[in-house]
Amino acid sequence: MRESNLHTMTCSVARSMGIFGDAWTLLIIRELFMGSRRFDDFQAYTGMAPKLLTTRLRKLESAGIVARVKYSEHARRFEYRLTEMGIDLYPVLVTITQWGDKWTKPSTEKTPPLQMIHKECGEPLGPAMTCTGCGKVLGPREVRIVQSEALQEERAHMRAKSTSSDTV
Amino acid sequence: MRESNLHTMTCSVARSMGIFGDAWTLLIIRELFMGSRRFDDFQAYTGMAPKLLTTRLRKLESAGIVARVKYSEHARRFEYRLTEMGIDLYPVLVTITQWGDKWTKPSTEKTPPLQMIHKECGEPLGPAMTCTGCGKVLGPREVRIVQSEALQEERAHMRAKSTSSDTV
Repeated sequence: MRESNLHTMTCSVARSMGIFGDAWTLLIIRELFMGSRRFDDFQAYTGMAPKLLTTRLRKLESAGIVARVKYSEHARRFEYRLTEMGIDLYPVLVTITQWGDKWTKPSTEKTPPLQMIHKECGEPLGPAMTCTGCGKVLGPREVRIVQSEALQEERAHMRAKSTSSDTV
Repeated sequence: MRESNLHTMTCSVARSMGIFGDAWTLLIIRELFMGSRRFDDFQAYTGMAPKLLTTRLRKLESAGIVARVKYSEHARRFEYRLTEMGIDLYPVLVTITQWGDKWTKPSTEKTPPLQMIHKECGEPLGPAMTCTGCGKVLGPREVRIVQSEALQEERAHMRAKSTSSDTV
């Protein structure tokens, strides 16, 4: 399996990773949620080399996550904005941030780097994942996973292929 | 900025990406949540080359996300399990899955590859992110972001460094 083929898999995690599954791409998306719009802002706040940044922005644009919008007729300058598909990555960024706050924060830092405040009620959050059926907070042990037929077939096929070529 | 330095940044997203920010690592974590425990299962279901898989498993182990447990005294065989730090990645995997279901599912597939069922109430979910203060469902426009002093300083520093060396 090559990384460039991940987006053709049945599994949604694999497909998603084929689109935004590298550190730099997620840092660009973070910057867009932080309000950055322009190439030099992405470059400054991610520390990416211009060539790498250009490649990743093009990938995000062709995937439909980012739209390039002209902001000056004279200078042919562009800015980048999240599309609806991009804005929908918000829960992914929030959950990554929360995990990082909990597990990677150096003990010397007292406050987490970002605090998220719910504008309406003014409370800092801990957004929790809740069940849309009953409203209760969800953890991994409360959820049962049902595989689609297509996914079951794909996994059986991968299992069989791997066993038959198992020379390692 | 080099990818190997991301884990030293102030931002929790950057730090997290420095740990699990590549497609293969997240696919191994997906497999662990799907119940896979052994090297050959990871290899089969991710399609990774053994060498790459070994490297990524070691990285996950040294980060504390995965623990290697001996399951046979005779054959010195190991299996891999998520630690508490690893299990805490559950919301990240769920949000990625949901995004992938919505935005990357081919139109030929009728059912999403995975359905998640809340065991207690039996309902399939859409887990939603809700405010722990008031319980309402959260979107990006309902949340205000407050940067810590450390993060503000780091970003100002990166901004300044980038402008001063802006020869591109």
